[in-house]
Amino acid sequence: MRILSFVQDGVSKIGLRNQDEVIDLSIALPDLPKDLLEVLQADPALMLKIEAQIKDAPQSARKAYKDIEFSPLIARPSKIICIGRNYAAHAAEGGAATPTYPEIFFRGAESLIGHKQDIIRPTCSDRLDYEGEVAVIIGKKGRHITKENAFDHIAGYTIFNDATIRDYQRKSSQWTIGKTFDGTGAFGPELVTSDELPLGMKEVQIQTRLNGRVMQDANTRDLVFPVDYLIATLSECMTLMPGDVIVTGTPAGVGYARTPPVFMKPGDVCEIEVEGLGILVNTVADE
Amino acid sequence: MRILSFVQDGVSKIGLRNQDEVIDLSIALPDLPKDLLEVLQADPALMLKIEAQIKDAPQSARKAYKDIEFSPLIARPSKIICIGRNYAAHAAEGGAATPTYPEIFFRGAESLIGHKQDIIRPTCSDRLDYEGEVAVIIGKKGRHITKENAFDHIAGYTIFNDATIRDYQRKSSQWTIGKTFDGTGAFGPELVTSDELPLGMKEVQIQTRLNGRVMQDANTRDLVFPVDYLIATLSECMTLMPGDVIVTGTPAGVGYARTPPVFMKPGDVCEIEVEGLGILVNTVADE
Repeated sequence: MRILSFVQDGVSKIGLRNQDEVIDLSIALPDLPKDLLEVLQADPALMLKIEAQIKDAPQSARKAYKDIEFSPLIARPSKIICIGRNYAAHAAEGGAATPTYPEIFFRGAESLIGHKQDIIRPTCSDRLDYEGEVAVIIGKKGRHITKENAFDHIAGYTIFNDATIRDYQRKSSQWTIGKTFDGTGAFGPELVTSDELPLGMKEVQIQTRLNGRVMQDANTRDLVFPVDYLIATLSECMTLMPGDVIVTGTPAGVGYARTPPVFMKPGDVCEIEVEGLGILVNTVADE
Repeated sequence: MRILSFVQDGVSKIGLRNQDEVIDLSIALPDLPKDLLEVLQADPALMLKIEAQIKDAPQSARKAYKDIEFSPLIARPSKIICIGRNYAAHAAEGGAATPTYPEIFFRGAESLIGHKQDIIRPTCSDRLDYEGEVAVIIGKKGRHITKENAFDHIAGYTIFNDATIRDYQRKSSQWTIGKTFDGTGAFGPELVTSDELPLGMKEVQIQTRLNGRVMQDANTRDLVFPVDYLIATLSECMTLMPGDVIVTGTPAGVGYARTPPVFMKPGDVCEIEVEGLGILVNTVADE
């Protein structure tokens, strides 16, 4: 099942994707919460009712996928947990050793944008860099989750562009400020439920293209800390909540580490493609 | 005006403190949102209606302050923005230089507890340390806020114990994981509105006591980056939202930097007193 968040006439809605059409769940299931976070917080049995709409939804609820105006997949997750240096080759290109414990930082919800929305280059910096990543969406609350049980806590996956203002990331020892600029965290296009994907998204290809040129091209088999390890490690410390997002880290090939460095400019188109998850596309615009 | 969040018979409420009594606003103003975040997001004129309850509230809404069961002042702020090394003497005790740009990291809402609730020492570590801090509560949304306008965006202030699991803080270069353990961020006791306090909380005393022994004793005049500077700097990068919390940093005297080091143990009582804001009291308990 593939669920997306969109806006129609200024109203936030969620939709169920069925190939080239989207079923507007505010029409097909009017009692359903209008926010994906609330759906994830609700009874998991709700997912079965949603899935049934592929067959059951009335024609009036069906729209063309190409006409959808996307919004961030979840507007206000309780936590957006990002993992740094989680591919050894990316750690190395930044001059860092492979970490022995995950590098963890949070993003704020104000940084989120949806599929096809603009990534914003701020007025204060031109060092805007892409970071293609696989994102985990938590479906079930938990603390002290074992690696063995980790996958039971995942609703599904999506794509994340952890776009970064590199000079702000390095203004102090803590990266957060360079990672939470308004309009930099592209998140979507859609939640793909775990049942449609390889367990833990192991061994899937991830590729980032900037204006069609391949900039990152890797496989999740090279994650230093795979998804089950991350869930166990994070939940040793904090409760993971439905709708929490774990952004699993970017592979080698980021712009700042290139010779010469590459930064994104207005008009640039950044695409991140992940096997099974689709393509997250965003154009860059100046603030 | 002093507003607090509390629980009664399992129901979350907000109250207006008037000396030794608390006016239960769910009774005095039944139409008011039950969550302080929603109150801060609403029309600022609401604050005048709340203030009027000191005189107008019926007797049935009035409770004894001593009987209040506190909850975190705001249960789910959009952002909990913490500032590290914001007193030069604290940076120095950790062997670090005085920063030239704020060290910024976020906490998650699951880490929050209220006044008189237990600070939780996790099973995985005994390196639980206190950090007494002044917290700013944002009242008005803004981006690119100037230092000159910064105070207009503040609803008020409270106290924060940015309690830290020191060994987890140092497990990687990013401190976040050591700063967001469940049940470690004590937040309250109450929102004191700006009109009752010195502008920007300049030159107020802050003192942390552990089992009655003074551990931190400082004055906010020694903040490296004062409140107006922090608001301008943060809002250059991100929109500040009503209910966002800026935890302004801890002074010298933390436990880990002492000889011998001092860590908090079950049964310890940690009090943080800030001039004008009252005393935040928490007992330590094992997970």
